[in-house]
Amino acid sequence: MGAASPNHNKKKVIGVLGGMGPEATALFFRLLVRSTDAATDQDHARILVWNNPRIPPRSEAIISGGPSPLPALLEGLTLLERGGAGLVVMPCLTAHHFASELAAAAGVPLVDLIGETLAHVRKAFPALKTAGLLASPGTIRSGLFSKAFAGAGIGILVPAPREQEAVTAAILEIKAGRTSGRPRTLILRAARALAARGAEAVIAACTEVPLVLRPADLACPFLDPMAIGARACIRKAGYAVKD
Amino acid sequence: MGAASPNHNKKKVIGVLGGMGPEATALFFRLLVRSTDAATDQDHARILVWNNPRIPPRSEAIISGGPSPLPALLEGLTLLERGGAGLVVMPCLTAHHFASELAAAAGVPLVDLIGETLAHVRKAFPALKTAGLLASPGTIRSGLFSKAFAGAGIGILVPAPREQEAVTAAILEIKAGRTSGRPRTLILRAARALAARGAEAVIAACTEVPLVLRPADLACPFLDPMAIGARACIRKAGYAVKD
Repeated sequence: MGAASPNHNKKKVIGVLGGMGPEATALFFRLLVRSTDAATDQDHARILVWNNPRIPPRSEAIISGGPSPLPALLEGLTLLERGGAGLVVMPCLTAHHFASELAAAAGVPLVDLIGETLAHVRKAFPALKTAGLLASPGTIRSGLFSKAFAGAGIGILVPAPREQEAVTAAILEIKAGRTSGRPRTLILRAARALAARGAEAVIAACTEVPLVLRPADLACPFLDPMAIGARACIRKAGYAVKD
Repeated sequence: MGAASPNHNKKKVIGVLGGMGPEATALFFRLLVRSTDAATDQDHARILVWNNPRIPPRSEAIISGGPSPLPALLEGLTLLERGGAGLVVMPCLTAHHFASELAAAAGVPLVDLIGETLAHVRKAFPALKTAGLLASPGTIRSGLFSKAFAGAGIGILVPAPREQEAVTAAILEIKAGRTSGRPRTLILRAARALAARGAEAVIAACTEVPLVLRPADLACPFLDPMAIGARACIRKAGYAVKD
């Protein structure tokens, strides 16, 4: 049993501030479980998930002045901290637009999925100069990836406006529960267009994208910030990462 | 947005007392999301999941006098209630051995996966007289299903001792992350043996079993208390159930 392990109580509870959307939160939870090197239940991480789908839409807040999700995010952060979370992660990249305000209010570390993705790219693909971005319009408008990656000398390519409209429509369909057929076709077309324009890797920078696209679908590397972030959370919480 | 719906605030937060095991908890979370009739994030249920894999093993406590999981279950219940849960469910059937003690301490309703399974059977298969049980040794020893179903005139068949050993071994392998190959073969063989002995339906009475077996694998109905229970939770929390 895990309780017998001397370092067990130094391990942190992973707090997941989710619901943006729920399907992506469920996927992230499973990625956390599957990223853990565990032989029995008791080797696994303690995880507290607050799936709050009532958080106002992030892209609308960033682009068209819709209600801010910040109050609901701060409430969720408090709920997770009171429940014992020792670190907190948001499995929604668009919500990272509000990460600095959350981090300022947080009593525990926030795991930054964008920073973790960049760290992974620098380590796994040190020569990479251009990456393509499949993202919600809010993430693209926020410039979160462009700014972080520019600091490391990596350029970010985004879809052309008409392609981006198709990506946005596909993301909404996936949130509504359709994970095959048309949304997959639209996302795949946009990914291949980015590669054709010079992207040496494609980043699935919206948590809905890996629900329809897999690495084998593309000739270039396909980077999933959710999978990279899940592994970072397991490691930072003090658990053994699989592989 | 859901906040505009007049009944939105009457909806309950679903509390999931999980981690027994984490893979089954992740599956149950996804079942909750996919059981909801929702067109946008904001139509989905608010869910608080406490994934605590440190809860002592349930079967060992029931069969061989191992440490009781009850204190950890009660702590988890308190955490979920403090976090706002309006109902609580345990996605672990063996843990239902402790359900009456938990219900006595709870300030909110506990959703009983065994009672929900029986209610589903009586409605969907009113003529059914014998059901087979694929379960952990703790669930079988506890007699939870046998007692509940006997009250409705339905007999419960369990695997022969040697078959049960194979089922138990397969469950442990699934908990360790292997969801294909040998564990699937062992579970499938036990399910078919139950049907050959007269089971008119097979109940996947361990949350690990549906991770390797699907309805199409069997000629008789295959009942999944996790899927039945997820739909019950969505309905009881006041959300629309899909289909």
